[in-house]
Amino acid sequence: MRVLIPFDPRKPKTRLGGVLSADERRAFAEAMLRDVLGAVRNADATPLVLSTAEIELDGVSVRVDERPLSPAVNAYRRETTGPLCVLLADLPLVTCKAIDRLLEPAADIVIAPGLGGGTNALAIRHPDFRVDYHGSSYLDHRDAARAVGASVATVDSFRLGVDVDEPADIVEVLLHGSGRADAWLRDAGFRLDSQSGRVTAVRISDEMTA
Amino acid sequence: MRVLIPFDPRKPKTRLGGVLSADERRAFAEAMLRDVLGAVRNADATPLVLSTAEIELDGVSVRVDERPLSPAVNAYRRETTGPLCVLLADLPLVTCKAIDRLLEPAADIVIAPGLGGGTNALAIRHPDFRVDYHGSSYLDHRDAARAVGASVATVDSFRLGVDVDEPADIVEVLLHGSGRADAWLRDAGFRLDSQSGRVTAVRISDEMTA
Repeated sequence: MRVLIPFDPRKPKTRLGGVLSADERRAFAEAMLRDVLGAVRNADATPLVLSTAEIELDGVSVRVDERPLSPAVNAYRRETTGPLCVLLADLPLVTCKAIDRLLEPAADIVIAPGLGGGTNALAIRHPDFRVDYHGSSYLDHRDAARAVGASVATVDSFRLGVDVDEPADIVEVLLHGSGRADAWLRDAGFRLDSQSGRVTAVRISDEMTA
Repeated sequence: MRVLIPFDPRKPKTRLGGVLSADERRAFAEAMLRDVLGAVRNADATPLVLSTAEIELDGVSVRVDERPLSPAVNAYRRETTGPLCVLLADLPLVTCKAIDRLLEPAADIVIAPGLGGGTNALAIRHPDFRVDYHGSSYLDHRDAARAVGASVATVDSFRLGVDVDEPADIVEVLLHGSGRADAWLRDAGFRLDSQSGRVTAVRISDEMTA
């Protein structure tokens, strides 16, 4: 299965601006991408990074398309036939097993919802389905699938459901990650803090200067 | 399989105090509990509600224990033999399929982590394992299992992973719920709002008075 991984190396993860500098956000985003690429390879699938700018990734195929996410994905889809997965690049908890579960249901469209109604992963086996990641894309993609007569299934996965967009998501990487993104955060001084109700992430360097 | 469902009907869901009154929090907590009970029954398991106070639940067995969560669960565990599940009462997305997945792994201890490092569901098949829900209980429970020589598995489930503690969690019920908790929220005026990056929940009645 071909797995498309959209990636924006220019200004990634702006909502992490409160806890990471622009350079750090780029490095962390690339660490997450590399975790996703590792999981795809372990699932015996073929990754293709759909990037808004040139990027060097040790032999992984890269297609550059400067357009926003949805038109760029749909342009690639129109050029291809056969099944396609689309996996977001900010899923550092993803494992080959989670990818296998995305491929398991026999439905035309399989969706792994993200926290807050996004679409973190898609398996597309219908020729007429197009993506639209704007807004509540999980519900929209279900509607879009039905509109073209495609059957839909949802994958119940925490590892596919946690995309790292906001500072509160960092704790999940520290808790459940074991790859480059987790290592990058620990190198940058992030640690678990279980003082409050839910565990949170604190940055030791911040604490020391506070 | 016997499924223990701890529930505190006295002052439930205090962290939802910013969006729900005390009476509303009690009603919403009970709606979530009833969703969990429905899923347990659909999974052909036997629910037992471990409540801090008397509560009437249409024929469901209730054991009253006023102690905090962990000592109350461990006291019950000490009186029983054989496998036991412990499922939190604030998991309104849980389905019988998700419960089946909790029971699938052959490990002595199976854990479904919640957002922020909690333990939302446990399958316990080892006689010496005891629970401790304080702090980062997901990691602590893994350690506790290993300390008594029990094998551990983790269930990768979004539906078991989303516990409703904070206002931001309400959106997941509106997106993925289909039971009493979802209906209760809609009756109370909650709707999806996809203006921002992630979809959020707004309360129409609040908007109108704002």
